[in-house]
Amino acid sequence: MSAPRIASVGCSTIGRTDLTGRDLFSQALAEAFEGLPDPAEVVDALYVGNQSETYEHQIMYGTLLAEWAGLRNVPAERVEGCAAAGALALRHAVEDVRRGTHDAVLACGVEKMTAGGTSGATDALSAAFDRALEQRSGITAPSQYALLAQRYLHEHDATEEEFARIAVKNHRNATANPRAQYQQEVDVETVLDSSYVAPPLKLFDCAPVSDGAAVALVTTPELADELAPADEQVVAAGTGAAANNISVAERDLTFVEGANVASGTAYEEAGVEASDVDVAEVHDAFTVCEALLAESVGFAPRGRGIESPLPPEERSEGWTDVHLSTSGGLKARGHPIGATGIAQAVEAYEQLTGRAGDRQVEGADTALLVNEGGVADAVTVSHVLRRAA
Amino acid sequence: MSAPRIASVGCSTIGRTDLTGRDLFSQALAEAFEGLPDPAEVVDALYVGNQSETYEHQIMYGTLLAEWAGLRNVPAERVEGCAAAGALALRHAVEDVRRGTHDAVLACGVEKMTAGGTSGATDALSAAFDRALEQRSGITAPSQYALLAQRYLHEHDATEEEFARIAVKNHRNATANPRAQYQQEVDVETVLDSSYVAPPLKLFDCAPVSDGAAVALVTTPELADELAPADEQVVAAGTGAAANNISVAERDLTFVEGANVASGTAYEEAGVEASDVDVAEVHDAFTVCEALLAESVGFAPRGRGIESPLPPEERSEGWTDVHLSTSGGLKARGHPIGATGIAQAVEAYEQLTGRAGDRQVEGADTALLVNEGGVADAVTVSHVLRRAA
Repeated sequence: MSAPRIASVGCSTIGRTDLTGRDLFSQALAEAFEGLPDPAEVVDALYVGNQSETYEHQIMYGTLLAEWAGLRNVPAERVEGCAAAGALALRHAVEDVRRGTHDAVLACGVEKMTAGGTSGATDALSAAFDRALEQRSGITAPSQYALLAQRYLHEHDATEEEFARIAVKNHRNATANPRAQYQQEVDVETVLDSSYVAPPLKLFDCAPVSDGAAVALVTTPELADELAPADEQVVAAGTGAAANNISVAERDLTFVEGANVASGTAYEEAGVEASDVDVAEVHDAFTVCEALLAESVGFAPRGRGIESPLPPEERSEGWTDVHLSTSGGLKARGHPIGATGIAQAVEAYEQLTGRAGDRQVEGADTALLVNEGGVADAVTVSHVLRRAA
Repeated sequence: MSAPRIASVGCSTIGRTDLTGRDLFSQALAEAFEGLPDPAEVVDALYVGNQSETYEHQIMYGTLLAEWAGLRNVPAERVEGCAAAGALALRHAVEDVRRGTHDAVLACGVEKMTAGGTSGATDALSAAFDRALEQRSGITAPSQYALLAQRYLHEHDATEEEFARIAVKNHRNATANPRAQYQQEVDVETVLDSSYVAPPLKLFDCAPVSDGAAVALVTTPELADELAPADEQVVAAGTGAAANNISVAERDLTFVEGANVASGTAYEEAGVEASDVDVAEVHDAFTVCEALLAESVGFAPRGRGIESPLPPEERSEGWTDVHLSTSGGLKARGHPIGATGIAQAVEAYEQLTGRAGDRQVEGADTALLVNEGGVADAVTVSHVLRRAA
């Protein structure tokens, strides 16, 4: 059971667009298959992560994209776990290939969030909360994450300014990422002066509403070698997933147990430890998430994840040397919900193959992806990717 | 790689209820785990087929049900391919167990269709058509299947009365199924005199709007033997899936290629042929579907699938002896969209373990399940189940 490879990736424009979900997929597909045989000659199965049918009044996204890619008589389906949908698609691709079910699986993510406007996105995302027990209160995603952030400030020696610095760092990273929705810097004052969405979280603590699509072609090592040179491949070395509570009511608000378990499984499969990870895309839907996840996956000691913007040498003892959200993260690269998990893989692919341009982390050998659905510990999907050559 | 077992099944009330999707799941779960250890002691992963978030304004059904079942830190997700969602969940469970990823996976299906009323269901189902190319015409599921039925009548020596006899047969079967939504007979005149929904399909040619949930516990043979005697197990011998066109515009209207391919794969994995199948639950969302699918999966010669209500000795040459839709089918057992694929497995489980009461097919050894999403050839998922003892 040798580890599958990611032989190619593609990503659409991310941001506010006039394109449909299928158009966005077409952009990503075209990039991934540039110089390769037609998808129909390569792809054995397709998974697509997609959060909400309400944006485009469209279900059956598996068949929709398989047909558009020219595939016939292949398994194709949509998977959904809110914002973790993309990583769920990637995980199926990885498992199908390593178990020998298929030689090549196309993992896709698509979301056309702007179709319903901001209120449409707020409403669609609120469907991720428990209908019977939580939605009726009117609670939103920012207000739930604000509870986590309040608790973080209460438990730890941390400040709103430190949350702001996570946003500043991720915007800075995005200036070097041509794929990013916001390729401009912001300063701490701008973040702190932005309106509260749900205290202590302000507008600039929150990831935007984004359209976007991304794809990753997962294949056997043998097929990867037919399609691409080794230095244009990445090893899908480990995957883990863990669902826990929908509700924030019954859990440790400042530790994401599922992220710890899912990432632990991915580390174990890959034969690495947290300290081996050079670059990580963690699910910074809100700035507090980056701090929480850095702690939950073993990069930082409890209460010190908030130091992620600091250079490694200035961080507290117990921190690893990992570079977090080099793409700009959900915050600045953008957060097209169902596509985010695959967009994270695109960034890792570029870092591990030395194609990350001005944001390249020298010597990047091992990457961790952490994609979450719902609020924090609802579901987490983690992947470890490694340099192939 | 030995074939997994279905060690237990459960099914909720099917029909128009006051229950939520989670309530319905609880009913099904309680039935499946009667006499077994708690789910948390057994289940390693959970998949749930669910068509539409619009009925209950609820996504993240994977986590929702995993949490409700008391599971922690397990992979849990929703899969969606419209009405094939249930079989997609079952397929993942089967593949995960036979590939050694997990020892026990809970395949679930849930739908709460009545929450949005009939117009809500019509609207939610229309999301299965291509938004850009078809939905805008106002076309509905019945009107698309009516095109197939018209073509069937045009190509073959068949009548509307013969379609009606399929509904009559399935209602008769449902009178012996305590799980069925409609446990009453209808006669040919009632079907023929019912209103046209989309000619030639009338009200009684169409499956109803239903609430319902069903679960199947898929395990290794070893674990199945710990949980249940061999005569209360079923072998999950083969699975296949095939997606083709969303649109009816570019395909053979009277042959479901994907059903042929998916069932062919399932037959091959199980080492059986169509003629070995004793009982089959095919996706009779409309009466014409049963005829089309009987032909596409190899039970009947082209143009003669419409003879499914006849006793085997009166059918045309080339027909097998299969008994179709013993549960009453989607037509009379009910069609809770995302749950239908698992409800089909529940019927096969009861037939193959000799628990089907007055509808028992004597000597039933091999069952085929055919679950479809979208219109006919959009996506098909097939399973072959076999008697374990």
